Amino acid sequence: MSRIVMKFGGTSVADLDRIRNVALRVKREVDAGHEVAVVVSAMAGTTNQLVAWCQQLSPLHDAREYDAVVATGEQVTAGLMAIALQSLGVSARSWQGWQMPMITDDAHGKARIESMDGALMISRMQAGEVPVVTGFQGVGPDNRIATLGRGGSDTSAVAVAAAVKADRCDIYTDVDGVYTTDPRIVPQARKLPRIAYEEMLELASVGAKVLQTRSVELAMKERVRVQVLSSFADADGGDLPGSLVVDEDEIVEKEIVAGIAYSRDEAKMTIRRVPDRPGIAANIFGPLSEAGINVDMIVQNISADGSTDMTFTLSRTDLPRAQAVLDAGKAMIGFAEVQTDANVAKISVVGVGMRSHAGVAATMFKTLAAKAINIQVISTSEIKVSVLIGAEYTELAVRALHTAYGLDAV
Amino acid sequence: MSRIVMKFGGTSVADLDRIRNVALRVKREVDAGHEVAVVVSAMAGTTNQLVAWCQQLSPLHDAREYDAVVATGEQVTAGLMAIALQSLGVSARSWQGWQMPMITDDAHGKARIESMDGALMISRMQAGEVPVVTGFQGVGPDNRIATLGRGGSDTSAVAVAAAVKADRCDIYTDVDGVYTTDPRIVPQARKLPRIAYEEMLELASVGAKVLQTRSVELAMKERVRVQVLSSFADADGGDLPGSLVVDEDEIVEKEIVAGIAYSRDEAKMTIRRVPDRPGIAANIFGPLSEAGINVDMIVQNISADGSTDMTFTLSRTDLPRAQAVLDAGKAMIGFAEVQTDANVAKISVVGVGMRSHAGVAATMFKTLAAKAINIQVISTSEIKVSVLIGAEYTELAVRALHTAYGLDAV
Repeated sequence: MSRIVMKFGGTSVADLDRIRNVALRVKREVDAGHEVAVVVSAMAGTTNQLVAWCQQLSPLHDAREYDAVVATGEQVTAGLMAIALQSLGVSARSWQGWQMPMITDDAHGKARIESMDGALMISRMQAGEVPVVTGFQGVGPDNRIATLGRGGSDTSAVAVAAAVKADRCDIYTDVDGVYTTDPRIVPQARKLPRIAYEEMLELASVGAKVLQTRSVELAMKERVRVQVLSSFADADGGDLPGSLVVDEDEIVEKEIVAGIAYSRDEAKMTIRRVPDRPGIAANIFGPLSEAGINVDMIVQNISADGSTDMTFTLSRTDLPRAQAVLDAGKAMIGFAEVQTDANVAKISVVGVGMRSHAGVAATMFKTLAAKAINIQVISTSEIKVSVLIGAEYTELAVRALHTAYGLDAV
Repeated sequence: MSRIVMKFGGTSVADLDRIRNVALRVKREVDAGHEVAVVVSAMAGTTNQLVAWCQQLSPLHDAREYDAVVATGEQVTAGLMAIALQSLGVSARSWQGWQMPMITDDAHGKARIESMDGALMISRMQAGEVPVVTGFQGVGPDNRIATLGRGGSDTSAVAVAAAVKADRCDIYTDVDGVYTTDPRIVPQARKLPRIAYEEMLELASVGAKVLQTRSVELAMKERVRVQVLSSFADADGGDLPGSLVVDEDEIVEKEIVAGIAYSRDEAKMTIRRVPDRPGIAANIFGPLSEAGINVDMIVQNISADGSTDMTFTLSRTDLPRAQAVLDAGKAMIGFAEVQTDANVAKISVVGVGMRSHAGVAATMFKTLAAKAINIQVISTSEIKVSVLIGAEYTELAVRALHTAYGLDAV
């Protein structure tokens, strides 16, 4: 007997037939003797419609009212799911964020979960009742509904799993697990049976969007075991095996490299001939940060003639704003010119195993060199090596690295 | 300066353009110096869709889950209306039933409002904020959303008006007031500038469905002045004059008869040769009541040979069930036969003035006799005289009575 949280996204509950199918799936776990809580998203399309109404009425709408409107999508699904479960003879009730309560901070529209007391829900589950929880929302300190931002239902599910001390949080998605890389680029990509939280975070933040990043952060903090699996059942109605996101210690056979990620949403800026004196980095990156622009890889060249070149990467969509910020600060910073390049991609090799294995970066550089791919910027962390390359080499680089690290399926 | 509650139904908020129009209308009252609270229904069609989903999943669905699902319609409108008001520069915020809270009993799906503390809302209104309240819902003793039954938003509006001690509760509808009778039958029908609560109740219960009956009962109990007016503005965007539903004392020039109502939703049952002994009425009407069948006009004939005939009216839709109940109790009651007639209509003359004026009933009988309309059953109350006639005489009777009581517009 396990205690499981099952989370279903918008496409899994897009209409009444799919809601019935999900209910059958939940019933199967209940019949197998498990204690189950369900977390649901809004029916596919609903949230977009509600968001569009808010924006059409006022582009600068009150985030608290936006939350009150948009949160209704999950409220509808939760009630319908409870009815569907009851019609199958499964005891169930819906819980809205303010009822549990799932307490958030007051950052309406992108709130963070602060706490949830799972004691009542645990006792209901032990009595055989299935709680059906509205994803994506809680209640803020102002006693008003606060939503967690798009994709927030994953985070809701992990928070519920932590609160009820679940053995596992199953996230049903339209992919069937976490792969060593994007199977659209590398057909030999393998599904990973287990992946460490840290690896999942690095893969998510560089473009492998299987789980919302915050849900993985919360799972890591609360030590919630998360399973990613397909919302499409096998021929017998059973679940296809997915990927388990767990603590590093739970992964017995660690691979040195777990996966290869890429991101095409990058741009590079180079500031030429910046005076090389203390405080200059703060003068550049302070105003960018104040403008809400996230800067990623940063490289400072060796100084020559008392000046240096500063290169960094940022999201491509932020490029025009960053250019404007730097132009405005040109006199204060005192540089010669800014060069930009939006035709770049970031390739990352990720794996907790590289903590104890040298040579991962060297293999990467050698592999790319053998394909004559020029490396523009390098950055490394404990479990990741990233390089910036010309965007046209993305597929070539990912395929070559996938083979080089022995990740191809046999 | 007045404190006003403005209530808008589903057709008034059916889309974003109409929501904007309502917001403009509210702004006009605010600009005129009034303190305003708004109560909204769901966008037209929304509630029907949500109800249909619940019923399709399970005809015998949990009323608590139905409430959680269906209540979202008003929650969407309230948030959107707050956004629309804010975009016009009007300070506004949405309030859901559980936030105020509007406390109801636990009769989910048809709950009754038990209490609402208006102190916080009054202080917000005094500070210039417009509360936008979700109609049709409150929160039950189980801390779950409870809806008031279809049309319940009128009752919500009256409850809010009572709680915030409003000077007036304006109900915007698709009719522009309360008429002396149905203008589709009598083109000379006049709009009543004022009508007493009791008259409105009698008119509503006999088919003039302008306001939900419970909203009028609550208004009478809480002495809330209710104005019924059209949701369509005049050429200048101003409100057309409506009808004020008020305490009898507020009506200076009382007419003896305020209006003529009719109901075609009637049927007549006659039980022939019932033994005329004590307890027989209880034997007949007890089982009908237990089956949830409301009986209206009851007439017992003079006894002859130790037996009597009993005639009563009921809703036409209840006729088959009532027949079954009586058939099942035939041995116990001991009657000869049951005759039914669904081809009847009830015509009622209503007016608080008849308390102090004799001859109202006599005028009615004389008028109908002059048109050769046979009266089958008569019942009277303090402010109403009702007769049952053949359904085919409905329009003729209503027109003749409207003229006879001097109600025709000149």
